[in-house]
Amino acid sequence: MSKNVLANQVDGFIEKSSFIRKMFENGIELKKKFGAENVYDFSLGNPDLPPPTSLVKNLHEIADELSEPFSLGYMPNAGYQHVRDVVATKVSEEQGVETPANNVVISCGAAGGMNAFFRATLNTEDEVVVPAPYFVEYNFYVSNFGGKLIPVKSKDMTFELDFEAITKSITPKTRAMIINSPNNPTGQVYTAEEIKQLAELLEAKSAEFGNTIYLVSDEPYRFLYYGEGKLPSVFDYYKNSVVISSYSKSLSMAGARIGYVAVNPAMEESELLLQGIILTNRILGFVNAPAIAQKLLAKSLDNQVDVAIYSERCKAMRNILVEAGFEFNEPKGAFYFFVKSPIADDVEFCAELMKENILAVPGSGFGFSGYIRLTFCVGKDVIERSREAFLKVMGKYN
Amino acid sequence: MSKNVLANQVDGFIEKSSFIRKMFENGIELKKKFGAENVYDFSLGNPDLPPPTSLVKNLHEIADELSEPFSLGYMPNAGYQHVRDVVATKVSEEQGVETPANNVVISCGAAGGMNAFFRATLNTEDEVVVPAPYFVEYNFYVSNFGGKLIPVKSKDMTFELDFEAITKSITPKTRAMIINSPNNPTGQVYTAEEIKQLAELLEAKSAEFGNTIYLVSDEPYRFLYYGEGKLPSVFDYYKNSVVISSYSKSLSMAGARIGYVAVNPAMEESELLLQGIILTNRILGFVNAPAIAQKLLAKSLDNQVDVAIYSERCKAMRNILVEAGFEFNEPKGAFYFFVKSPIADDVEFCAELMKENILAVPGSGFGFSGYIRLTFCVGKDVIERSREAFLKVMGKYN
Repeated sequence: MSKNVLANQVDGFIEKSSFIRKMFENGIELKKKFGAENVYDFSLGNPDLPPPTSLVKNLHEIADELSEPFSLGYMPNAGYQHVRDVVATKVSEEQGVETPANNVVISCGAAGGMNAFFRATLNTEDEVVVPAPYFVEYNFYVSNFGGKLIPVKSKDMTFELDFEAITKSITPKTRAMIINSPNNPTGQVYTAEEIKQLAELLEAKSAEFGNTIYLVSDEPYRFLYYGEGKLPSVFDYYKNSVVISSYSKSLSMAGARIGYVAVNPAMEESELLLQGIILTNRILGFVNAPAIAQKLLAKSLDNQVDVAIYSERCKAMRNILVEAGFEFNEPKGAFYFFVKSPIADDVEFCAELMKENILAVPGSGFGFSGYIRLTFCVGKDVIERSREAFLKVMGKYN
Repeated sequence: MSKNVLANQVDGFIEKSSFIRKMFENGIELKKKFGAENVYDFSLGNPDLPPPTSLVKNLHEIADELSEPFSLGYMPNAGYQHVRDVVATKVSEEQGVETPANNVVISCGAAGGMNAFFRATLNTEDEVVVPAPYFVEYNFYVSNFGGKLIPVKSKDMTFELDFEAITKSITPKTRAMIINSPNNPTGQVYTAEEIKQLAELLEAKSAEFGNTIYLVSDEPYRFLYYGEGKLPSVFDYYKNSVVISSYSKSLSMAGARIGYVAVNPAMEESELLLQGIILTNRILGFVNAPAIAQKLLAKSLDNQVDVAIYSERCKAMRNILVEAGFEFNEPKGAFYFFVKSPIADDVEFCAELMKENILAVPGSGFGFSGYIRLTFCVGKDVIERSREAFLKVMGKYN
């Protein structure tokens, strides 16, 4: 009977996702039973820092202008011109490549931007390559429009790109490759050398198959880099690239749904691609990125949450994980540790952690079993207090 | 070459939409040349009334709470619980059917809600029936997920449902039917009798084909009804129905992107359908309806723009159109007149109107040629001033 209610594919998605929902519900149960302060919840990537205080003043200013006609009316589908202007300036600065406002489409977060991009570019059966482990939602963004995500395992422990495997995965059906740096779930970043090599590969494969292969760089964690200097930009290395990002993490406003798609100005047919993305942003029902969040963003773009807080948590967590005897590569950005499970079965290991009130996500949820993801979107005190629990669990395996 | 840039279907959409863009650009040209006040722009449905003044205060209150952690963080994908609660109460009141909060998913406007619904329910090649003339975006919402929109002409001039034609259009592939009352572009409403008859037909066809056929009622203009009493609710007549709506018009906040999908509590598998819509709302990249607009809506739901202003404009426009000798059925709701073109070619007639600085949209844009749509989202003074221009154009044909 239930076949009659939902589309077949969506039916399947719901069945699969029941496992994660169950984990989530278990976490809620634990918190009820032991008190939220006694549960070490490293499972959720929901930024816990408040938005920068300047946003309060900025939203008051927007409220003052709300009684004007059209204050919240329809606008061009690509966003308010003044918002595109300031975002383009910021993107130019971050990418080190002069990016005109016309090359920027304001989107409903990075997720909205990715859906608009894939709706604009994917034909049914087209393939999209992504290094694993990967953000599991990519699977949906691609399948929404009849495409197929092709995960390619990165190198064990370092999560460097495995070029041999990537080369084999690219076929005449390959339409795009997604990279995410700093990475969710690994916390690793790609070097300029890796991006250059990837660009050369995509260039060669595009020529071989007579097909444009896009490089999609998903960058919501660019601001959260613990290393020296600046992260490389895909714009510098590959013409047919787009940067998709959001302010969900840098301004702690994930629920406000604000981000952008920026198309490399060096792309020959960038104008047509932009027309397509602006159209699909409209017809997918976004119509335009939310008006109030756009106005708030334009006034707040010089601000961001305090990166030092995340950096300190990262160190605190590192020390505990080392002490407990975990094997891992230290994160270079974002707010995740992706650590090797002491047993092959990462789901079972997460269950063991849960016995000590530690919530983590199994790596198999990211297409990379044998690891677990720990998120530090919780206060440093929670991290410190989790020490004994980690030592106790790991004591069983050492 | 351009085949390599966009998906084939999107390429086609862009080519087709170039005509409307051209019209829009012509309008901008006219305004530049003659001054905006001398152009009678009845082409755009962008509400010109400011949001109710209470929204100013309400947004200030939200700004005050912005410095709390998670103030704009992720939330459940169906929306904040308190927002679902108040929207459900309002929906219950409007529909006259007790609708629990669990049956309401807060969406990114009605357009976002429709995309989430169709993503959740359509298999490739599924068909969706809609009475013509119809809001042209429906075409996209259905085709985004491989479905096919099947327009069925309504009766000439009155735009009542043509049941004979609808009966013929329903096949084993029919997954849903969309109705929109008060209607864009006709301004007409469906009576309880029509909805009852439609429900019986869909019931019979669902049984005949062993397939659930959903009835989707798109209702952003429900508040803007010029008749007596209350509009009928699909919930009363058809179990497998959903109401999709937005506050774009009632609160003049179309750009803020806020609306909902409400699933008939009488539907047997409503829970599974809701699970599906909540999932697709997430994976299409909406994730959740925009946080600030949700909070603003919850505080503002007892308000709406002044319907009397639209009603007065409607009368003023009616008098001019009668005087000019147009044939039309007076609108019973929304802010549109759909009037018969004095010549068969509605596109040519719009060009004639444009010579006198009147902007209108040809009915063929809504799948119903021989008519034009006039929107009264402009001040009454603009309507009054357009009188001579209408008389002059129509003088050529009488």
